[in-house]
Amino acid sequence: MSDDRRTRAADRTQAIMRTTLELAQEVGYAKLSIEAVAARAGVGKHTVYRRWPSKGALFLDAVLTSGEPGLDYPDTGDVVADLRRQIHAAVDLLGRPPMGPLYQALVGEAQHDPLVAAALNERFIRPQADRTVARLRKAQQQGQLSPEFDLDVAMAILSGPLYFRLLITQEPLTHEYVERVLTALLAGMTPRP
Amino acid sequence: MSDDRRTRAADRTQAIMRTTLELAQEVGYAKLSIEAVAARAGVGKHTVYRRWPSKGALFLDAVLTSGEPGLDYPDTGDVVADLRRQIHAAVDLLGRPPMGPLYQALVGEAQHDPLVAAALNERFIRPQADRTVARLRKAQQQGQLSPEFDLDVAMAILSGPLYFRLLITQEPLTHEYVERVLTALLAGMTPRP
Repeated sequence: MSDDRRTRAADRTQAIMRTTLELAQEVGYAKLSIEAVAARAGVGKHTVYRRWPSKGALFLDAVLTSGEPGLDYPDTGDVVADLRRQIHAAVDLLGRPPMGPLYQALVGEAQHDPLVAAALNERFIRPQADRTVARLRKAQQQGQLSPEFDLDVAMAILSGPLYFRLLITQEPLTHEYVERVLTALLAGMTPRP
Repeated sequence: MSDDRRTRAADRTQAIMRTTLELAQEVGYAKLSIEAVAARAGVGKHTVYRRWPSKGALFLDAVLTSGEPGLDYPDTGDVVADLRRQIHAAVDLLGRPPMGPLYQALVGEAQHDPLVAAALNERFIRPQADRTVARLRKAQQQGQLSPEFDLDVAMAILSGPLYFRLLITQEPLTHEYVERVLTALLAGMTPRP
């Protein structure tokens, strides 16, 4: 591919991502369609389908492209501060409008469509879990986390309480809530001497 | 109401509950309809609608009626054993077939339909959270749990990791997984002296 063609392809991808988010915010996830995205972005629908096999995959990519930098783990040497900052970024992006209701709808669709569930896991959950475990493993090696702490359930116990609130009780995901959850998870339920 | 009429009404309710579960298992939650339930249970659809305003409310009631005794908290005096037993009962009922995929679909629908979300919370989540907090408060008073442990987030941190697995990674909810989550939550993430 020439430099010129590569630039045009990158521009097209960016336009598709931006249009996907715009349209999703206008009509909601349920009514979003690949056809409508293609039409508004000024590309053929096969251009979209070639890269994104489903609406779920397209939407996930658009969400991640818009927010990915914010979901990386900082490493200031203080694992609690880093966890707090990363979780705040995640709930600010995915736990409130405009993205919150869209992400919620996407997880809803994952309950009916195994392809959406698989895309969600491959494109977002697994990479995020890997980053979480890597950051926590380092902290464990530095003695900031208990040597017994089970890294395999780290992602589930850190993000589970956020999903519980987003999907089940559907109350707002505030920073205050994040703080209370973090405090409970760090200290544990049983008394400390 | 005469005793006779009361008995007939109770029989009818039982038939509707049983039929709802049967049909949901046959056709899946998405294709379940109040009309089909009424027809198979041999009652008018208004009889169903009078008591259950939506499919979500009907299905929840059917699930709870079938499984409620198992989701009560035992009180043996050992809070960890009691939590373990209650969570095992919950994942055995809601985390595997036949009920698991139906419950998953119901939570999926709650992401698109605020009435289903409200019914889920009122009929199931809130009462279960109240029972959880009551059992944990007693344990806290007896010194089995840390006096600092925040009972307001107890339900979220105990059930969040289960929902994460049921709804997000969609891996099986085994007793082994429950054990690892419980261990992590009880001990906490930071080192103990």
